[in-house]
Amino acid sequence: MDIVIGRGKAARRAYGIDEIALVPGQRTLDPSLADTTWTIGGIQREIPIIASAMDGVVDVRMAVELSKLGALGVLNLEGIQTRYEDPEPILDRITSVGKDEFVTLMQELYAEPIKPELIIQRIQEIKSGGGIAAVSATPVGAAKYGMVVAEAGADLFFVQATVVSTTFLSPESVIPLDLAQFCQEMPIPVILGNCVTYDITLDLLKAGAAGILVGIGPGAACTSRGVLGVGVPQATAVADCAAARNDYYQETGRYVPIIADGGLITGGDICKCIACGADGVMIGSPFARAKEAPGRGYHWGMATPSPVLPRGTRIRVGTTGTLEQILRGPAQLDDGTHNLLGALKTSMGTLGAQTIPEMQQVEVVIAPSLLTEGKVYQKAQQLGMGK
Amino acid sequence: MDIVIGRGKAARRAYGIDEIALVPGQRTLDPSLADTTWTIGGIQREIPIIASAMDGVVDVRMAVELSKLGALGVLNLEGIQTRYEDPEPILDRITSVGKDEFVTLMQELYAEPIKPELIIQRIQEIKSGGGIAAVSATPVGAAKYGMVVAEAGADLFFVQATVVSTTFLSPESVIPLDLAQFCQEMPIPVILGNCVTYDITLDLLKAGAAGILVGIGPGAACTSRGVLGVGVPQATAVADCAAARNDYYQETGRYVPIIADGGLITGGDICKCIACGADGVMIGSPFARAKEAPGRGYHWGMATPSPVLPRGTRIRVGTTGTLEQILRGPAQLDDGTHNLLGALKTSMGTLGAQTIPEMQQVEVVIAPSLLTEGKVYQKAQQLGMGK
Amino acid sequence: MDIVIGRGKAARRAYGIDEIALVPGQRTLDPSLADTTWTIGGIQREIPIIASAMDGVVDVRMAVELSKLGALGVLNLEGIQTRYEDPEPILDRITSVGKDEFVTLMQELYAEPIKPELIIQRIQEIKSGGGIAAVSATPVGAAKYGMVVAEAGADLFFVQATVVSTTFLSPESVIPLDLAQFCQEMPIPVILGNCVTYDITLDLLKAGAAGILVGIGPGAACTSRGVLGVGVPQATAVADCAAARNDYYQETGRYVPIIADGGLITGGDICKCIACGADGVMIGSPFARAKEAPGRGYHWGMATPSPVLPRGTRIRVGTTGTLEQILRGPAQLDDGTHNLLGALKTSMGTLGAQTIPEMQQVEVVIAPSLLTEGKVYQKAQQLGMGK
Amino acid sequence: MDIVIGRGKAARRAYGIDEIALVPGQRTLDPSLADTTWTIGGIQREIPIIASAMDGVVDVRMAVELSKLGALGVLNLEGIQTRYEDPEPILDRITSVGKDEFVTLMQELYAEPIKPELIIQRIQEIKSGGGIAAVSATPVGAAKYGMVVAEAGADLFFVQATVVSTTFLSPESVIPLDLAQFCQEMPIPVILGNCVTYDITLDLLKAGAAGILVGIGPGAACTSRGVLGVGVPQATAVADCAAARNDYYQETGRYVPIIADGGLITGGDICKCIACGADGVMIGSPFARAKEAPGRGYHWGMATPSPVLPRGTRIRVGTTGTLEQILRGPAQLDDGTHNLLGALKTSMGTLGAQTIPEMQQVEVVIAPSLLTEGKVYQKAQQLGMGK
Repeated sequence: MDIVIGRGKAARRAYGIDEIALVPGQRTLDPSLADTTWTIGGIQREIPIIASAMDGVVDVRMAVELSKLGALGVLNLEGIQTRYEDPEPILDRITSVGKDEFVTLMQELYAEPIKPELIIQRIQEIKSGGGIAAVSATPVGAAKYGMVVAEAGADLFFVQATVVSTTFLSPESVIPLDLAQFCQEMPIPVILGNCVTYDITLDLLKAGAAGILVGIGPGAACTSRGVLGVGVPQATAVADCAAARNDYYQETGRYVPIIADGGLITGGDICKCIACGADGVMIGSPFARAKEAPGRGYHWGMATPSPVLPRGTRIRVGTTGTLEQILRGPAQLDDGTHNLLGALKTSMGTLGAQTIPEMQQVEVVIAPSLLTEGKVYQKAQQLGMGK
Repeated sequence: MDIVIGRGKAARRAYGIDEIALVPGQRTLDPSLADTTWTIGGIQREIPIIASAMDGVVDVRMAVELSKLGALGVLNLEGIQTRYEDPEPILDRITSVGKDEFVTLMQELYAEPIKPELIIQRIQEIKSGGGIAAVSATPVGAAKYGMVVAEAGADLFFVQATVVSTTFLSPESVIPLDLAQFCQEMPIPVILGNCVTYDITLDLLKAGAAGILVGIGPGAACTSRGVLGVGVPQATAVADCAAARNDYYQETGRYVPIIADGGLITGGDICKCIACGADGVMIGSPFARAKEAPGRGYHWGMATPSPVLPRGTRIRVGTTGTLEQILRGPAQLDDGTHNLLGALKTSMGTLGAQTIPEMQQVEVVIAPSLLTEGKVYQKAQQLGMGK
Repeated sequence: MDIVIGRGKAARRAYGIDEIALVPGQRTLDPSLADTTWTIGGIQREIPIIASAMDGVVDVRMAVELSKLGALGVLNLEGIQTRYEDPEPILDRITSVGKDEFVTLMQELYAEPIKPELIIQRIQEIKSGGGIAAVSATPVGAAKYGMVVAEAGADLFFVQATVVSTTFLSPESVIPLDLAQFCQEMPIPVILGNCVTYDITLDLLKAGAAGILVGIGPGAACTSRGVLGVGVPQATAVADCAAARNDYYQETGRYVPIIADGGLITGGDICKCIACGADGVMIGSPFARAKEAPGRGYHWGMATPSPVLPRGTRIRVGTTGTLEQILRGPAQLDDGTHNLLGALKTSMGTLGAQTIPEMQQVEVVIAPSLLTEGKVYQKAQQLGMGK
Repeated sequence: MDIVIGRGKAARRAYGIDEIALVPGQRTLDPSLADTTWTIGGIQREIPIIASAMDGVVDVRMAVELSKLGALGVLNLEGIQTRYEDPEPILDRITSVGKDEFVTLMQELYAEPIKPELIIQRIQEIKSGGGIAAVSATPVGAAKYGMVVAEAGADLFFVQATVVSTTFLSPESVIPLDLAQFCQEMPIPVILGNCVTYDITLDLLKAGAAGILVGIGPGAACTSRGVLGVGVPQATAVADCAAARNDYYQETGRYVPIIADGGLITGGDICKCIACGADGVMIGSPFARAKEAPGRGYHWGMATPSPVLPRGTRIRVGTTGTLEQILRGPAQLDDGTHNLLGALKTSMGTLGAQTIPEMQQVEVVIAPSLLTEGKVYQKAQQLGMGK
């Protein structure tokens, strides 16, 4: 709170992922020695990357494939997968409509109600395919479908809102979800988010969260900051929430992973989040570019269908390779979007970190990758515009 | 004054709306519980948004519609509405002329004198349509037409100059407007602006202002900073002037609203101004995009017609929806320019603020949304340029 | 020196004109009351603006016109005007050659020797036209042609190098120009530059300078910073050098004007330089856009013809109006490049400064006009790209 | 470590070359008096510039020419020159393949094994051409081919990895290169890199390095920062490593040059690195633009062919002149990419530095050349887009 915006309004400076870089230390190690294993809700995974609960990113097939490749995918229980028995023609429409009709189409498609039997069916399809069934809902959806989900055999439940808190004021007609009670009553681990502050993280941990999603406003397909003015740059948000995790662990002995969610595109982004204290990351657009992704080369935000205040936009991300190439390589692109596991292991090797906890301790510098004149010159060269 | 520009010249850092973001607190609330009511000059309004006194933004019809929708529009008494009996063909010319002839045309059109009978007529048209008659003039115009306006039955009088002060040196031939005397003599509330500092705000409050307009230089259609070098970034200006309001209220018990004016485009911008201490905002270009706006999809600054030093430019903003969609939704755009009230309520819900005074207290972080390499990459993706 | 770049290398932050803005004070005044008069080398001028000694900016006609309009133009004695009896066909070639052949052409054209008789002729043409004969040369040229210039009746002599200092180490074969001796021996006032620091300014003042040019690297047509890495942002350079002027004045009672030179384009830029302590400014590209300018809509740097290390580039600036419109209005453009005197007077009125010395005292804020996402959005709107 | 990113994560601000500029001091000197001589591994050179060990930059002919012109070129022993007897058709393929197939082609071409007899042949070709035989390999390659290189008569051996350290953890199956032992056993001087910190520089100096390469992540054709998140801006990295050199020299009396490597394009960039403490620089893309360069107008990174995690990209840089023009002029371009020696000498003259050690002491300011609105306006003018 050391910066004075004006008389009577102070603020602190918050830092984004684009503003930092990682500094090598005293030793290096062979990437093959880097151990990227982590555990969430009692489930151990080799790759600390979760695919976002978005229509264009995770369907049953993706959830199964991600599990087999050592990662995890979360199925959105309030998206098209549980509103439509056959989501394929719906996806065709979403990805072929013109830009100007997109919001209206989404509002129309989401007018179709969610069907509990489809929730059960999707979970069972993932399980029978050999996948880990991780699913997500908003607090309202969680209250409605929580028990259905648990009984259907899901492994992990993500409760996600733009911003979640343990204290929610609602009109008298609505009974808000008591997160602590929900975590206690659910027979499966509950991951809560999103939040960006130390205090809320601590509240959510005390409520029994098995994981905390961190990030408001930074995503490529998210327009919260423009529409609501709300957002905290990701490096600061992750560091603050990780500090709450550490303090809670010190006090209780229970270690709960922090998952950075939003705005991460390259291997470097993932490495930087972990260096700020994250245990894992949740990413959307990098997976939307997989051949197997339901989005057919498109990616869109989950607040888009809001009937009164749509937020989030549809982005053409293209299709660049198989899910395996994107997750485990070999890379055929040199821009950090293929072989994310290889990038993480190589970064850990370069930085001398053998484990995720060691990676959380590496040195960080503030080094904004701003668009300077020099960089514009470089870009011009890259585009063959240099004299 | 802690930054040394060079020997003998110190400065302080001022912050713009683009450099800050809002941070969620300990609780959230349902948007329906957010109360956005405010009062200006004794008139209570549901929506703390005022449409700017600009030719392309407010005419009689817009003033009436804005009143009915819970907001407010200000009619410029020195624009084309009071120079021409029928402004429609004039607006056609302004919006169809080529870019290179625009300034010259405006200088020519403004050579036509203001007609007091048209001032009376416009005010009565607004009143008879059921609207709140809020009108504006420069200090020179206020001196000339003040009493005409009051007698015509106007409800609020805005006195606006690029920069207003209580001490104005003028040539002997000119008798400057005494703002204190004017406020005292006018039978209707007088709102004064624009200013950007604590001291001038305090002076204007002591002069009897019923509202203070804050903002110099930040508007999209304003070129003051380029032409004159003058301007203070809006977050700092609002926080400083709001502090003067608070101190004046402490001392006198009279609470006078601060209105952020200039450069605000999205719901997020409005939310951030209130979080810096504003009670309401004045916006132009978002309303210029309404189907009902007189600007026919264009927006232009009111200093443009200056015969010797035009400032302000004409911008093609397009027409994106009805005034109701822009103010109250439902939104058909996802970029924060539709359903401004919904955005404000949702932001207040996200931040746990039940009232405007609570919204003025939310936490702010310095989080520049600079164009970093990462963001350019994202934009490229959005444009389908990603590999 | 409070910023650590790395161990063993500290630096201070320097500020550019684009990073500051001017803040209104407690009073305002009618622009007609603003007195912009200044004095350089005993010559009083109404407008504190000097046209740069560049081939595309000042010829005999421009020097005469600028004098008549209340300003000043400096003729470069080492440019094409003194190498060619008839410069018109030369200017035609310079402005019609392709971009790739420009540097080679300039190197070729400058191989033609300077003719002392043309120096005399140009000075007499300016005088007989009723203009103030202000001319410039490099230190080497000054040593050669100084007495010729004085005898020809010139009024002011500018000695300009990229960087000038009183201590110049040279090979034994070369006798460097002793600036102090030169100032003393010349019968007309000598203005020296460019420099950017307090210490060098003080040295040059002690050497007898009648004016100090401040600015290295910031010009639009200057590539010193890219080629040499050398440069100091203009706000800091002006403030530092103005402090030396003040200290020297305190000590000796001799007041010597500081002239900001380089990178100034709009009225706002000029206002900001004066607010940082300058008494006047030297500008090139704004005058290159005049109908009367020799550059035919082009502007180029004077280090371009260097046979071994060309610096400076040719820019297409276009022709936007008459010299009178640019200097004194009325403006037909709204971007701050027309009616520079009107902009200065209006800015002084807005800021409450009655004289240049008062303008040097106005409050400045650090307010970077960086390209933020919001501004890109605004620009897109201005270009009609908004939805 | 004075900046708090978040609770529990602190960082320091690091500065890039684009963020600084050089400040003239109390004297200037004629460029002809500037002595740019330096010594590396006992070899004295007039020009402190080394051409990077990259396929598109240095082949036998370039190495010979660079030596004759007073500089130095390093041949990559693990690139195409030692995999293919005749590299010309290989270079044709690399530079004619489409952008999308580039990475795959490089991975395929590098599957061809390195041939020790070609290593010997290339070194002998350079020596018989009259050049200095400076060659480079990764630590793995150094272990394999070190003795072959020494026996073939090479003069300097560069051991380069993205990040090098004296402590390298490797799988049991691999015996890592002991850098200290390697330096001691090699009969020729060994230059080590890259590193970015004081501590590692000191370690490498103690290991016996005859030169230290500084720079991770800043290169135009390098994507380490995007892929791995790793990188330190060059001004800070050079200053830190130069401090280690100074401390080591104080202690031991052995002076070892620091070579800034990566991201340097113009003469100004080179000058700024030396001002931060470097003794010399290693550059790639400026030489890739020479008529003699093997890259045929293209430039690409050496981590590109990695079979699992390619980093680095291919850039079209164009061909702008002869190697002599680029190194020693005369320049036919005005953008700082021709006559690099002339730029260095002129900069030293402007700054009053007679030798490289004096140049290391010149004053630096933080002066970010960010893309401000003003600069965009300038650029628009340069492109003829000004009104």
